[in-house]
Amino acid sequence: MAEKYVIGLDYGTLSGRAILVDAENGRTVAQSVKNYTHGVLEKTLVDGTPLPAAWALAVPADYLEVLTETIPKLLAQSGVKAENIVGIGLDVTASTFLPVDQNGVPLCEKAEYAARPHAWMKLWKHHAAQSQADRMTGLARERNEDFLKWYGGTVNAEWTLPKLLQIAEEDPEICREADCFMEAGDWLVMRLTGERTRSMCIAGYKLQYRKAWEPSGVLTGYPDREYLNRISPLLADIVAEKLGGRPLELGEAAGGLTDAMAERLGLLPKTPVAAAAIDAHASVPGVGICSPGELLMVLGTSCCAMLCSEQAAAVPGIFGMVKDGILPGYYGYEAGQSSVGDTFDWFVRNCVPESYVREAENAGMDVHRCLTEKAGRLRAGESGLIALDWWNGNRSCLADANLKGMILGLDLATKPEHIYRALIESCAYGMRAIMEAFEAGGVKVESVYACGGIAKKNPLMMQIYADVLDREIRIGSSDQSSALGAAMFGAVAAGVYPSVIMAAKALGHVEAYSYRPVSENAAVYRRLYQEYSALHDYFGRGGNDVMKRIRCLW
Amino acid sequence: MAEKYVIGLDYGTLSGRAILVDAENGRTVAQSVKNYTHGVLEKTLVDGTPLPAAWALAVPADYLEVLTETIPKLLAQSGVKAENIVGIGLDVTASTFLPVDQNGVPLCEKAEYAARPHAWMKLWKHHAAQSQADRMTGLARERNEDFLKWYGGTVNAEWTLPKLLQIAEEDPEICREADCFMEAGDWLVMRLTGERTRSMCIAGYKLQYRKAWEPSGVLTGYPDREYLNRISPLLADIVAEKLGGRPLELGEAAGGLTDAMAERLGLLPKTPVAAAAIDAHASVPGVGICSPGELLMVLGTSCCAMLCSEQAAAVPGIFGMVKDGILPGYYGYEAGQSSVGDTFDWFVRNCVPESYVREAENAGMDVHRCLTEKAGRLRAGESGLIALDWWNGNRSCLADANLKGMILGLDLATKPEHIYRALIESCAYGMRAIMEAFEAGGVKVESVYACGGIAKKNPLMMQIYADVLDREIRIGSSDQSSALGAAMFGAVAAGVYPSVIMAAKALGHVEAYSYRPVSENAAVYRRLYQEYSALHDYFGRGGNDVMKRIRCLW
Repeated sequence: MAEKYVIGLDYGTLSGRAILVDAENGRTVAQSVKNYTHGVLEKTLVDGTPLPAAWALAVPADYLEVLTETIPKLLAQSGVKAENIVGIGLDVTASTFLPVDQNGVPLCEKAEYAARPHAWMKLWKHHAAQSQADRMTGLARERNEDFLKWYGGTVNAEWTLPKLLQIAEEDPEICREADCFMEAGDWLVMRLTGERTRSMCIAGYKLQYRKAWEPSGVLTGYPDREYLNRISPLLADIVAEKLGGRPLELGEAAGGLTDAMAERLGLLPKTPVAAAAIDAHASVPGVGICSPGELLMVLGTSCCAMLCSEQAAAVPGIFGMVKDGILPGYYGYEAGQSSVGDTFDWFVRNCVPESYVREAENAGMDVHRCLTEKAGRLRAGESGLIALDWWNGNRSCLADANLKGMILGLDLATKPEHIYRALIESCAYGMRAIMEAFEAGGVKVESVYACGGIAKKNPLMMQIYADVLDREIRIGSSDQSSALGAAMFGAVAAGVYPSVIMAAKALGHVEAYSYRPVSENAAVYRRLYQEYSALHDYFGRGGNDVMKRIRCLW
Repeated sequence: MAEKYVIGLDYGTLSGRAILVDAENGRTVAQSVKNYTHGVLEKTLVDGTPLPAAWALAVPADYLEVLTETIPKLLAQSGVKAENIVGIGLDVTASTFLPVDQNGVPLCEKAEYAARPHAWMKLWKHHAAQSQADRMTGLARERNEDFLKWYGGTVNAEWTLPKLLQIAEEDPEICREADCFMEAGDWLVMRLTGERTRSMCIAGYKLQYRKAWEPSGVLTGYPDREYLNRISPLLADIVAEKLGGRPLELGEAAGGLTDAMAERLGLLPKTPVAAAAIDAHASVPGVGICSPGELLMVLGTSCCAMLCSEQAAAVPGIFGMVKDGILPGYYGYEAGQSSVGDTFDWFVRNCVPESYVREAENAGMDVHRCLTEKAGRLRAGESGLIALDWWNGNRSCLADANLKGMILGLDLATKPEHIYRALIESCAYGMRAIMEAFEAGGVKVESVYACGGIAKKNPLMMQIYADVLDREIRIGSSDQSSALGAAMFGAVAAGVYPSVIMAAKALGHVEAYSYRPVSENAAVYRRLYQEYSALHDYFGRGGNDVMKRIRCLW
C-alpha cells in the first residue's frame, strides 16, 4: 500500500506529546513534546487570583498550543508529506473538563469570567471536591444506587460529577452560563473537527455513563435523575442538559480536520480525527493487547491496571467497568494504585541519608538507581520488612482514600535499601491483590503486560513484580504506549484498519525479553503475600480503623 | 562537721568516670572520665583472634586503669586531701562478668588462656547466648519454674546464666579452670579491698538470686538445681560452686582500701569501699528518690525504669523484681525499653535527607536538634502517625526480643520531622504501657522522675513524655546520677549516713523546673495511646505474629 502515517497525541498532566507512526508497522518516525505554557494552576489563576487548597486547573489554550507546536515539527522532522498522514487520534487525562459556551469557547477565555476559578479547566487531579464526592457516596449507598457497584463502591473526587457539584454549589452562575461541560479530549476533537462529540470511553469511566448491555435490565445512561436531584437539583439539570455531544466509541471518526485547523497544522483538510480516549486506556492497544484476559499495568507515578473480559462482572473494589471502554466488544475493567512511583519519589526526597546521596554522586548515578542496586543485592524477603502501599490511599480493592501507608519489621539494622525494597514489594503485593480480586470476581487474568516509565527503566522492580505475581510479565516496546494507542484510533478512524483490535495486532509490539518468576523467590513471596493480605484486610476492612481515626484527632 | 568527700565511680560500656562529691550536700567538686583503652571487643580479641557474631567482650585491665587514671585527677583538680575522702562506691553495667582464678586473677590475663574468647570479660551486651537463653526459657516454662514470674517470664540473653551456659558448652575447660565467675563490679571491689564479695543487687537482677522474703514460701537462692541440671550438669555445678563471695547489700562496706591500692590511688589505706551496684539502679538514690512509688526513667540509648514498692508483686512483663535491690527495705522493680536514643540515632543515620543535614549545618546545630525543633512545631498527634517502639525488641511488658518496630499512617505528605516526633511519642507510649502494667499489677506509681542524657538535653521529648504519661516529670539535677548514687553508697559504707535512704535525702537533688502535662495534649495522647495499646496487643500478644514470622523466611 501507499505510505500511510497516523498521528497520535497524548496529553499528560504537565505536557502534551505527538508521535508520527507508520500505519503499516507501528514504527514511530517522529515525536515532539510541548510542556504546557502555564503548567498546572495550583496556587493562583493566571491573573494571580488565589486558589484554595487541593485545586488543580489547566489552561485550555495550552492544550491547543500542543497541536500547533508539535504537529508541524513531526512533519519537519520526518519529511513525511501531509497527504500521507491519514488519521489523527488523541488521548487525554480524565476527568479533565471545562465549561464552554454554545460556540465551544471556554468560559475562562471570556473577560467576564477570567477571574472566576470555576470557569477554568479542572484537571483530573483537582481534589477539592472531596466533600462533594463523600456526600455522593453516602447517598448512593443509602439508596443502593446500581451504578456504584460498577465503580468500586465509592464516588471518587477525581470524577466529573463531584467536580460539577462543586461548581454548582460554589459558583452556580458558571453552570447557568455554560452551554456544555466538555471533557478536554472532546473539546480538542471539536477544535480539530468542528464536531461536538462525547467519548464513550471517557463518559463511561469518568461520568458513570452506562450503555445498555446484555444481560438486559442493567440501567443505562447517567446515574438516576432522582438520585442526582436529591444531591442537587442544579446537578441534575446539568446532567440532563449540559453533557451533550454525539456519542462516539474508540476508533470512531468524529469528523475531518476543518480547513482552518488543517492550515494551521500543515495537514490536509478532512483528515479523519478519532474520538478521544483516556490516556491510560489508550496504552492497552498501544502495547498490542487485543484479547480479553491480558492485564496491562501502566506503571508510573501511580499504577493503572486494565483488563478486558467477555464477562460483565461487578468485581468488588474494582474502580470502573465500561463496555467497549478499552477494546471494542469487551467489558473493560480499570483498577489501580494511587501511589507507586510517587512513593519512591517521596522516599528519595524524605528518607535517603546524605551518605547515600554522596555515594550515588561518586558513582555517577541518580539516587533511585543507587538504591535500586543496593536493594537488588538483597534476597526476596531479606529486608525483614513488610509494607502496606497506601501512601495515597487505596484505589482498589478497598477504594478508600483515607487509608495510609505502613512499614512493619523495622529494627536498628534496617537500612534505606531494605525500606526501598519493601516499598517495591508492597506495590507488587497491592497489584497481586487486584489480580486476585479480578479472578475471584470471575474475570480471568491470562497474561500480564507492563508499560510506562518504570516498566522499561527498572528491571529489579519488574522482576519483583514477576516474582510476587508469579506470572511472566511482557513489556510494551514503545516508550509512548498511550500516544501509539491514540495513533491506532486515528488509523481505525481513517479506515486503515477495520477495528481497534486489528490495529493493535498490526501496530502494537512487546519487547523480545520478558520477566519470568524465579520459583524460589515466588515461594518466599507467596508467604509474604499472605502476611500482606492479612494486614491489608485488618487495616482496610474494619479489623482496626486506626488509619482513619488518627487523621481526625483535631 | 569536718569536710568529708566521697568518690563515686560509674563504669559504662565505653568509658568509666569518677566524681568527687561533697558528702554534706551532694555537690560534685571534680570529675574525670577515662575511655577504656581497648573499647569493646566485638570483632577480635586483643591479639587478633576473631570473634563470632554478637559477641561483646571487655578487657579487665582497662577497668583498673579507670581507677588509677581518674582518682588521682579528682584530687589534683579539687585540691581535696586524701584524709577528707571517707568512702568509695561504684556501679558497673551488668551482667558484665569474668572468670578468675583463686587469687582473683582474670583467666584472660594468663598466657595459656589469652587466646580463648571465653576467658575474657563478657559485656552485658554480649548477645551470643541467645539460643542458650531460649532453651532456658523453654524448660523454665515447661517446669513452671517459680523464678520466671519475677523476671518477666523470659530468660534474657544478657543475664549471667545463659552466658555461663554458653561457656560451659563451648569451652568447658574455662569453667573447670575458673575458681569463680565474678561480676565486674565485685571484681573491682576485690581489687580495691582484697575482699571477695557478691553484690546482692547485681546477683538479684542478673543471676536470679532470690533472698528469702515475706510472705514466706517464696523460694530462695539461685534457680532450682534440678532445673539447672536438666539444662546442663556443668551449669548446675558452676552455680553451686563458682558463684561465691560474701553477700553484700547496697551501701554495705565490702572492706577498706588495701595499702597497695591506696598508694596507687593516692588515698588513705582502709578507706571504706561499698558493695558494687548496677549502673542504672545507682541513679535512683542519685536523683534523690527515697520513697516507694517514685518511678525513675533513665533515658539514654535505652530506657531503664525503676520503681520501689512495699508490695511484692509478680507484675506480668516486668523485667526483674528484687528485694532491697534498689533501695533497702523495699521491693525494687526494674523494667525498660531496649531502644530509645538508639532509635533516634538509627533514624538520623538512615532516614534524614541531605537537605535537612544542610539546614542543620547552616543553622549551626546538630541534626537531632534540627529535627527536634521541627518536630516541636507540630501539635500533639499532628504527624498523623503512630509507631510501635520495638526497634530492638520489647523488654517490658511483652518481654519479646523478636518483636520489631512499625510506623503506620504514612502518606506522600509525611516529612522526616513527622516520623521523628512519632518515634518520640512511641517511646512515651511504651513507657506508659510499663507504668500501666505496674499499676495494674498493684504497684503504685506516685510520681515520675527522669535522668540520663535525654532527660536534661531534650525538653521536647520530656514534655511529650509528660503529656503522654499525663504526669509531672521531675528531672534529676546531676549529669552523673549513677556516679552520684555510687558515691552515696560509699558515704553509707563510710558511716556518714546511717542508710541509703538518708544519703539520698541529703545528697540527691532534682531541678527546680519540671515538666507538667498540658491538658489538651494529654487528651489527644489519651486517644492515641488507646490506638497504640490496641496495636501493641495485636502484634505483641498473638493477634498477628507477623513480626516473628517474617524474620524466618529463609
